[in-house]
Amino acid sequence: MQYDTKGMPFRRLGSSGLRVPLFSLGGWLTIGTTVLGDPVKDLMKTAYEHGINMFDNAETYADGKSELEMGRVIKELGFKRTDIIVTTKLFWGTEYGHNLGGLSRKHIVEGTRASLERLQMDYVDIIFAHRSDPTVPMEEVVRAFSYVVDRGWAFYWGTSEWAADEIEEAHGIAQRLGLHAPVVEQCEHNMLHRERPEKEYAGLYKKYGMGTTAFSCLAFGLLTGKYNDGIPPDSRLAKHQDFSFLKELGDSLGTEGGQLKIGKIKELTALAEKELGCKVGHLALAWVARNPNTSTVIIGASNVEQLLDNLKALEVIPKLTPEVLEKIEGILGNKPVPKPTYGRPSLDAFGRT
Amino acid sequence: MQYDTKGMPFRRLGSSGLRVPLFSLGGWLTIGTTVLGDPVKDLMKTAYEHGINMFDNAETYADGKSELEMGRVIKELGFKRTDIIVTTKLFWGTEYGHNLGGLSRKHIVEGTRASLERLQMDYVDIIFAHRSDPTVPMEEVVRAFSYVVDRGWAFYWGTSEWAADEIEEAHGIAQRLGLHAPVVEQCEHNMLHRERPEKEYAGLYKKYGMGTTAFSCLAFGLLTGKYNDGIPPDSRLAKHQDFSFLKELGDSLGTEGGQLKIGKIKELTALAEKELGCKVGHLALAWVARNPNTSTVIIGASNVEQLLDNLKALEVIPKLTPEVLEKIEGILGNKPVPKPTYGRPSLDAFGRT
Amino acid sequence: MQYDTKGMPFRRLGSSGLRVPLFSLGGWLTIGTTVLGDPVKDLMKTAYEHGINMFDNAETYADGKSELEMGRVIKELGFKRTDIIVTTKLFWGTEYGHNLGGLSRKHIVEGTRASLERLQMDYVDIIFAHRSDPTVPMEEVVRAFSYVVDRGWAFYWGTSEWAADEIEEAHGIAQRLGLHAPVVEQCEHNMLHRERPEKEYAGLYKKYGMGTTAFSCLAFGLLTGKYNDGIPPDSRLAKHQDFSFLKELGDSLGTEGGQLKIGKIKELTALAEKELGCKVGHLALAWVARNPNTSTVIIGASNVEQLLDNLKALEVIPKLTPEVLEKIEGILGNKPVPKPTYGRPSLDAFGRT
Amino acid sequence: MQYDTKGMPFRRLGSSGLRVPLFSLGGWLTIGTTVLGDPVKDLMKTAYEHGINMFDNAETYADGKSELEMGRVIKELGFKRTDIIVTTKLFWGTEYGHNLGGLSRKHIVEGTRASLERLQMDYVDIIFAHRSDPTVPMEEVVRAFSYVVDRGWAFYWGTSEWAADEIEEAHGIAQRLGLHAPVVEQCEHNMLHRERPEKEYAGLYKKYGMGTTAFSCLAFGLLTGKYNDGIPPDSRLAKHQDFSFLKELGDSLGTEGGQLKIGKIKELTALAEKELGCKVGHLALAWVARNPNTSTVIIGASNVEQLLDNLKALEVIPKLTPEVLEKIEGILGNKPVPKPTYGRPSLDAFGRT
Repeated sequence: MQYDTKGMPFRRLGSSGLRVPLFSLGGWLTIGTTVLGDPVKDLMKTAYEHGINMFDNAETYADGKSELEMGRVIKELGFKRTDIIVTTKLFWGTEYGHNLGGLSRKHIVEGTRASLERLQMDYVDIIFAHRSDPTVPMEEVVRAFSYVVDRGWAFYWGTSEWAADEIEEAHGIAQRLGLHAPVVEQCEHNMLHRERPEKEYAGLYKKYGMGTTAFSCLAFGLLTGKYNDGIPPDSRLAKHQDFSFLKELGDSLGTEGGQLKIGKIKELTALAEKELGCKVGHLALAWVARNPNTSTVIIGASNVEQLLDNLKALEVIPKLTPEVLEKIEGILGNKPVPKPTYGRPSLDAFGRT
Repeated sequence: MQYDTKGMPFRRLGSSGLRVPLFSLGGWLTIGTTVLGDPVKDLMKTAYEHGINMFDNAETYADGKSELEMGRVIKELGFKRTDIIVTTKLFWGTEYGHNLGGLSRKHIVEGTRASLERLQMDYVDIIFAHRSDPTVPMEEVVRAFSYVVDRGWAFYWGTSEWAADEIEEAHGIAQRLGLHAPVVEQCEHNMLHRERPEKEYAGLYKKYGMGTTAFSCLAFGLLTGKYNDGIPPDSRLAKHQDFSFLKELGDSLGTEGGQLKIGKIKELTALAEKELGCKVGHLALAWVARNPNTSTVIIGASNVEQLLDNLKALEVIPKLTPEVLEKIEGILGNKPVPKPTYGRPSLDAFGRT
Repeated sequence: MQYDTKGMPFRRLGSSGLRVPLFSLGGWLTIGTTVLGDPVKDLMKTAYEHGINMFDNAETYADGKSELEMGRVIKELGFKRTDIIVTTKLFWGTEYGHNLGGLSRKHIVEGTRASLERLQMDYVDIIFAHRSDPTVPMEEVVRAFSYVVDRGWAFYWGTSEWAADEIEEAHGIAQRLGLHAPVVEQCEHNMLHRERPEKEYAGLYKKYGMGTTAFSCLAFGLLTGKYNDGIPPDSRLAKHQDFSFLKELGDSLGTEGGQLKIGKIKELTALAEKELGCKVGHLALAWVARNPNTSTVIIGASNVEQLLDNLKALEVIPKLTPEVLEKIEGILGNKPVPKPTYGRPSLDAFGRT
Repeated sequence: MQYDTKGMPFRRLGSSGLRVPLFSLGGWLTIGTTVLGDPVKDLMKTAYEHGINMFDNAETYADGKSELEMGRVIKELGFKRTDIIVTTKLFWGTEYGHNLGGLSRKHIVEGTRASLERLQMDYVDIIFAHRSDPTVPMEEVVRAFSYVVDRGWAFYWGTSEWAADEIEEAHGIAQRLGLHAPVVEQCEHNMLHRERPEKEYAGLYKKYGMGTTAFSCLAFGLLTGKYNDGIPPDSRLAKHQDFSFLKELGDSLGTEGGQLKIGKIKELTALAEKELGCKVGHLALAWVARNPNTSTVIIGASNVEQLLDNLKALEVIPKLTPEVLEKIEGILGNKPVPKPTYGRPSLDAFGRT
């Protein structure tokens, strides 16, 4: 019996039993938005052929059209349901309405059912709370997601961009009431955004075996170096001015802080090209992927070429030796400082505390 | 109203409410592998006519074909679902894939559904975890099997070849969370393999009323005496060299330890033939069956004759008097030593501790 | 029957049953350090006569001498135990040793006993974890403080400068195990330090009725305006160079950021003096005291005059009208932004969400 | 504030908050038996001066006299209670009687009180169940030890030489009932005895953060090489024929298996002396100490010279490079095989599963 992983490494999703590919394909800003019809099929087919059997979506991506497209293509390509991993996320709904979004029990249940219908599936593998909702009691949220799992509509539930205290509260409630606890966080993680995934969550990885599905590992394109000399007219930052955070990001590049970032990216570009023989974007993806707390790196792609190019990051991972990582830290200068504790000098010759 | 069990004794499955026949029919290495088509029907029909209404299977037996065959035959023979007991087991899947085996929630749910489809049934009576999976948190495993029971896909769940500490952990979690605990262990038990079923599990029988469905009671044929003078060319050990453990077993027979075993089997053969008037294989089956912690002895058979021959073991059980059992212990010399405790000489005149 | 609170307002400590004076007296950096002997008695006597019946301490203040002094004076002044509130805190011990600090069960129990001995008391009213300890399982910490309460050594336990996720974890464990949860946070809160007490803790006030005992409300003296023109030689920042954080604070005043702060303080000084007829220090204390989530403002004082001066802040509180508060926000420009949530435009005509 | 650990590394006891020295002093077979009076004081004083502030005992050691001696000496030397760690163990009592040993609630409570009296202390730091007791329901055992902790007679409780399934059962009950779970196992661990501490307990370290206090790290002297050429007349094996397991060990040295062991020890002796410049006994102690799951190595000593000699093992630890460890495995040939799981080829380029 032979199994071809097509060169793709797989990891456990945190301490859960699910195995996920180190790179997965996300629908955000592409599928259902700029990528429609046959190109979606080309993209997902190519992904699958390269070992990417995990597809990430959200009800709000292209207002539901991203799920519609993915569901259609999965059917047309004849993927076996057991052989793929499909995830989606609830929060912003597909259109605005007081009860058409957020994390009320009403929307969690209704939203899950609507997503499954768009995806043409009985269940997703993971359903995420796309944000936290301070206007809903956490017990209501945990009960509702646990209900979704108990109904068989998802195998696991997770959070996305929650604060550590919110995840702690969810775990406390789940443990006390014997409910399903979240097993994974979908979080922004890249060389320029590290505090939350690397410091704020540090205890959660250890205590709860939390997995992560990392997004924006290229910092919305910044880490490809394509904004090193300004914003090109056909780039994401130029085109998606409707997303306020992208507009703000674009505007910020002209500031002193923005130029500081650009400077670092230029240094990283030199490191990548001269010492590692790769593009800085590959380095950026590999750098997140090699973090042992990362379960999967979600990549978005507008076309097959982009997707294949991203996968070259796999070859860079083994090149990230301690020495290279040290150099990267030297350039970035943003390594999170661990939480202090009761000072004990030379506790352990082996570096244990 | 009379109820004809056709001479087959029935026992409770441990302390559960399910009654199982003392002998049951397993599909391993035969059904779907070497036994296909009409002979499967003959085998199961004959078994049923002799009181064997319990059929054991696993997703991995013949990569799903064993379940397909059994399911087809049960339908063709028109067995009433209420009158039979069907079991299956999950772990190795029917083909290899990261999420196509093991004990993740994904595979437990997807695997159960696939097995039921192959068996053409709404539910099995018992679903087993075919092995333990140290890479999945036990809470995920217990929750998933409990979910399977709550969905009505199985009445009970059990373990197979788990270590005692794993079964303890499962019980601790099930009790704490109010979930279904496993009620039965499918374990290897024969005269040459006793430590686990007789010693390691001793506390589990008492504390949790654990039942057992014993397999390999003939030690892969060794205890029929057929390997006493070497490995015959058409025997299981000669033919199944693809199963590494069977190859190793065959190879081991030539060693000093192997010859020691063969010597014991020759002594048991003499005892069976001269004092009990039976074949050594019948003695071996009867010996496991008479153990009060055994719920059922699973027998495999390549044809109807073999099956009927195995059932002669039923007549041997009453002959296993304390004196005969003592002689057997004398030959085997492998009686497990009970766990020691705080030494209390002659605690109790009645032999109680 | 009349009860004379000597003009001091009292509040509940969060949602607990304990009533605390709006101002309380702390021993940090003064009692046992620079204030010793009879002056301690003068200070505490004066405080008490002005309605301050709450005294805050910690094992580490002056390495235990602060507790010794307070305990001695309480005895000498003949305060009735029921009429005063005494608090202490554990973490740094009185001397360094592997098990002489931190939040292990060993130190929580041994440290509490040692503090009570120094204070010459059977119990304190509140015992605080002076910091969090990521090297001790939270369950061990919660169990140990709960034990301290169950032994009668304290009525309540609290945290000091814990992150919100740590407090959440403690509550989750306490609720699940039926243990005493922390009821109060001793946190830095002043016009220049607002994110944690005003934003990070926002959910904790609502969910758990958490109280706060605010310290450093004058930002180590900055908000008295005394550093507006540099560091005077006999000031705290000049004298306590042994405390690295005070040294750093002093050093930072010369930087651009430091001067920005000084600029704001000058504006506040003008506001206080011209519009409110008070010193800026009084305004700063009143501003924290009027926050409804503040239970008590801890003030330190080197002598009776300083103490009495601080108490003038009480008269400023009623002057903090919405208009004045708005002006203060305008000067500070650091009002924490509440956590975003699912966007609901004009959800509620009454400003509710 | 300076703290002198006298060159002794400290580790956390598993994931608990207690810090223990890497080497600790045990009373077994020495203190109260052959070492009495002033020599006990010399021994404990020397130990403390070298950073060993942890002292292990048991009610049964020298039938209570070991605790009496240790208690007396701790008092006479004026050790601060907070600065030392004292442990004892219950099971065999100090004399035989139906209710004078074992793990009944009666003996756990009565035994603890008697030990504390002999030690002249209010509490020990850790109290161990010296063995498991299959004749007492586990719930009774866990409840009783939890009671001992709740009474303040110990900070933690642990097990000694329990099987993994027994420890699992204890955790399941403790979690379900909200009781104190055991945090540490006192287990035999040495180069010749590895299955239990290295394999059977593997899951317990990860799941429960179990610590270990290792004993018999020299295999009752075998690993010092002193029995390489037979049993010297004044050695432990010659003198302690009253301990049946020591007599059996001595007898076994003449067998084929015994000689195989001696052969390995001779090879280890050569490795230690020629490549590491140390005695084989130092190597043996260092080898257990460097195992990250070991919290402390308990050493026994008949006199000050022996104790100081043992401590030379500290210098060997840094010499145990991966290469040297590999050589040791080659000599020992007894490395435990990890539990198998669902086979997943090349799951993860980083060696994660």
